[in-house]
Amino acid sequence: MLAMQIKHTSLVNGSFSAPISPLDRGFAYGDGVFRTIKIINGLPEHWPMHYQTLFADCSAIGIVCPSADTFISDFKKIFDVDEFSAVVKIIVTRGEGERGYNPPAITMPMRVMIKSSMPDYPEVNFSEGVVLHLCDTRITHQPKLAGIKHLNRLDNVLARMEWHDPKVAEGVMLDMEGNVIECTAANIVARYGDTLITPKLDQCGVAGITRKQILAHAKRLELNTAIERMNLKDLHSADEVVICNSLFGAWQVRKLAGQQWAKQSLAEKLRKALHA
Amino acid sequence: MLAMQIKHTSLVNGSFSAPISPLDRGFAYGDGVFRTIKIINGLPEHWPMHYQTLFADCSAIGIVCPSADTFISDFKKIFDVDEFSAVVKIIVTRGEGERGYNPPAITMPMRVMIKSSMPDYPEVNFSEGVVLHLCDTRITHQPKLAGIKHLNRLDNVLARMEWHDPKVAEGVMLDMEGNVIECTAANIVARYGDTLITPKLDQCGVAGITRKQILAHAKRLELNTAIERMNLKDLHSADEVVICNSLFGAWQVRKLAGQQWAKQSLAEKLRKALHA
Repeated sequence: MLAMQIKHTSLVNGSFSAPISPLDRGFAYGDGVFRTIKIINGLPEHWPMHYQTLFADCSAIGIVCPSADTFISDFKKIFDVDEFSAVVKIIVTRGEGERGYNPPAITMPMRVMIKSSMPDYPEVNFSEGVVLHLCDTRITHQPKLAGIKHLNRLDNVLARMEWHDPKVAEGVMLDMEGNVIECTAANIVARYGDTLITPKLDQCGVAGITRKQILAHAKRLELNTAIERMNLKDLHSADEVVICNSLFGAWQVRKLAGQQWAKQSLAEKLRKALHA
Repeated sequence: MLAMQIKHTSLVNGSFSAPISPLDRGFAYGDGVFRTIKIINGLPEHWPMHYQTLFADCSAIGIVCPSADTFISDFKKIFDVDEFSAVVKIIVTRGEGERGYNPPAITMPMRVMIKSSMPDYPEVNFSEGVVLHLCDTRITHQPKLAGIKHLNRLDNVLARMEWHDPKVAEGVMLDMEGNVIECTAANIVARYGDTLITPKLDQCGVAGITRKQILAHAKRLELNTAIERMNLKDLHSADEVVICNSLFGAWQVRKLAGQQWAKQSLAEKLRKALHA
């Protein structure tokens, strides 16, 4: 038997030793939501916005989100105050249920908190920008789940399995109609002159909080914003393309499917704005 | 704290006490597949076909399915030979992985076996037939996952949450284009004269083994078969509609979205054929 041991620290419902039930509906059906958050000096960065989104995502599928205090108490158990930099993943599921899709009349949501180290991102991603793969796997339309960071992520898994070249940082995913939606684990923002446009996520995709923050910061950078449908041709015609998420902030896209962009300054400005 | 205790017996990788890892990709992303099988006299009914499908579903998403012998050994641990009637659910996931969609180069699939009692189906479902709800939640198109019984089942969960009337046995799900696909946990077969038609599942849906068996048994019942796209109007114009799965076999649909059908004999004939 292969011994694969991945180092991690995790809490299940606030306990270091509680098990995940085989009857948990997160495990059975992906019936839950999650967040990935950067920890700086023992504290989750942008926590109020993360909690607000976690709460909204839970509500959208009828899960009663545990209180913010509950998570704060968990953070204190798992992170030292002098913990300089790490990542926390929070999963909230609908909890246990009998076999079958119908949830029990009363459910007890389960929460899992997993601590891991910050990914070892190449410095060049920040200083020079990144190369993207164009994914063959499309994102499925489901307006009832659009924008939500839920646990049904096989689209993203299949898309991420498409490339192995470590020099390719991310993959762009289109929907079935050819609209640009997002990367496997990041959102996309494109600049046209003095306007930032990010794809509409009303049919599918995850509306990340960094995307939301960038839209909010745009005015300070003297940029207008719009949320629109865009296809690959629209993306290619952008003056500048940036991808973003809660861990790396923002990276400029230098190359995607035959298109190249010269080095520019938007990603750096956005990173500064995000930490301001 | 609410005490909800659901009675069940389960094995994780063949052990009654092994935990499910918080880093399991089945839990994190629904990165796995499953089967639900009827146990009769301690043995899984139609096991060779179930195993074949489990193996094919695993392969389709790049998971190496454990051997049939491994599951047989698990069955022996969890079921007594004189166990008259029960249900086993088998889940196979890609196993543990670091945070992020990219699976490790080498993964160790995890298997979970959960034993539960047979659902207490109303006798009238077999003798008279069933009433179906027409679901508002649509099934998402994903050709790369079409037909596979994978763990991304939020569509089915949301659809099943649409009705609470215990007299409604199942819900019909359409795709985004209005094609009839399946029920939340059953396939659909419609008879037009001497031809059985079941919806094409090349874009979405789960290709259950009972559907497959019914197509194979049709000739003996002097029925032709076809796999075609059908919309709700097509379904309504059927002479007879039957839903099927591995646990209840086949039930006649008597009522769906304003349409009613007189009691007929196909479901009973199919149930007999399935156990022959």
